[in-house]
Amino acid sequence: MAAVLPKAVRELTQELTLLPGVGMKTAQRLALHLLRQQRGTTARLAETIATLHDRVQTCSVCFSLADDAMCAICKDPSRTKSTLCIVEDALDVEAIERTGSYTGVYHVLGGLLSPLAGVGVDQLTLKELAARAEKEAIQEVIIALEHSMEGEATTRHIMSYIKNLDIPVTRLARGLPTGGDIEFADALTLNAAFSGRTKV
Amino acid sequence: MAAVLPKAVRELTQELTLLPGVGMKTAQRLALHLLRQQRGTTARLAETIATLHDRVQTCSVCFSLADDAMCAICKDPSRTKSTLCIVEDALDVEAIERTGSYTGVYHVLGGLLSPLAGVGVDQLTLKELAARAEKEAIQEVIIALEHSMEGEATTRHIMSYIKNLDIPVTRLARGLPTGGDIEFADALTLNAAFSGRTKV
Repeated sequence: MAAVLPKAVRELTQELTLLPGVGMKTAQRLALHLLRQQRGTTARLAETIATLHDRVQTCSVCFSLADDAMCAICKDPSRTKSTLCIVEDALDVEAIERTGSYTGVYHVLGGLLSPLAGVGVDQLTLKELAARAEKEAIQEVIIALEHSMEGEATTRHIMSYIKNLDIPVTRLARGLPTGGDIEFADALTLNAAFSGRTKV
Repeated sequence: MAAVLPKAVRELTQELTLLPGVGMKTAQRLALHLLRQQRGTTARLAETIATLHDRVQTCSVCFSLADDAMCAICKDPSRTKSTLCIVEDALDVEAIERTGSYTGVYHVLGGLLSPLAGVGVDQLTLKELAARAEKEAIQEVIIALEHSMEGEATTRHIMSYIKNLDIPVTRLARGLPTGGDIEFADALTLNAAFSGRTKV
């Protein structure tokens, strides 16, 4: 079969399929959608993508994403610098900030330990975390990593050097999500909810 | 809540939500994904989007998408120019070409009549279709539009001037899709499959 769509559309489709969750069909639809937009709209999108790396920095303190050398949370004098919440990425920071109830600071690992996926200690900011835990006057650590194989492995690794520092360390509770129907809960979650049950 | 993610990420997220099927969460994930890619990868994507409009033209004959003034199918001397298949957009052309069994040419309407969505006769290439039907020596017309309100309305509009030309006009069959379970078929499809039943 001869290629029917123009080369530019095929190239864009190809590049869009590299995005997570975007298959061939979706990529084609997106490419056609962009083609139907005003030139100004696509030009703006192209410009935003092109300048993304230059405009975003990594916070030198917590390794979250930032507009400049230090993120808004680390700059904020009202945050409790002695409480450290360890998360996987900047989206987790955003999710926790949405609750509006956490007033400490963060440490962004940049991923979870996963030998199968080739993510080792050096790919994450674990050494930087160890350095922070030793240097800064941290009084509480909250590990907010997902409850998965990778989350467990990363937590164990963190505990291996944090436990010597005599700082209280907690993990986020496991249990049923709000509104989650019990009949649809998986066995692991249900087990965790049972063993973590609280007094009424 | 203060904005946690950097301005560049928020701007990109905002622009990505304008894409069909991309909500806030997906847009954030895509933005973060792009940020994790090599600069070369995002630069290439940006460039492909930026040059899209300049590189794609509309075929002057069938109004499909083309690399230059005429699409590959209209240029192809082996295609039967007297058989005309009417489709909604270039993706439909691509889908029909994938079957490998259609050897005629196409006419791309650029949409379907939809008064509610503000798509009238002038937004589509219906006048151009009428002109082609009169000028070109067309011996068969195949209407390959979806079976929906808009598809029906567009088909009726096309028939209103094609029926005077004494050309055989057919529509693609309605019925059960291959592999489609009967219990999941909607009533309209099942009705159409019944009334269009063929001898075994």
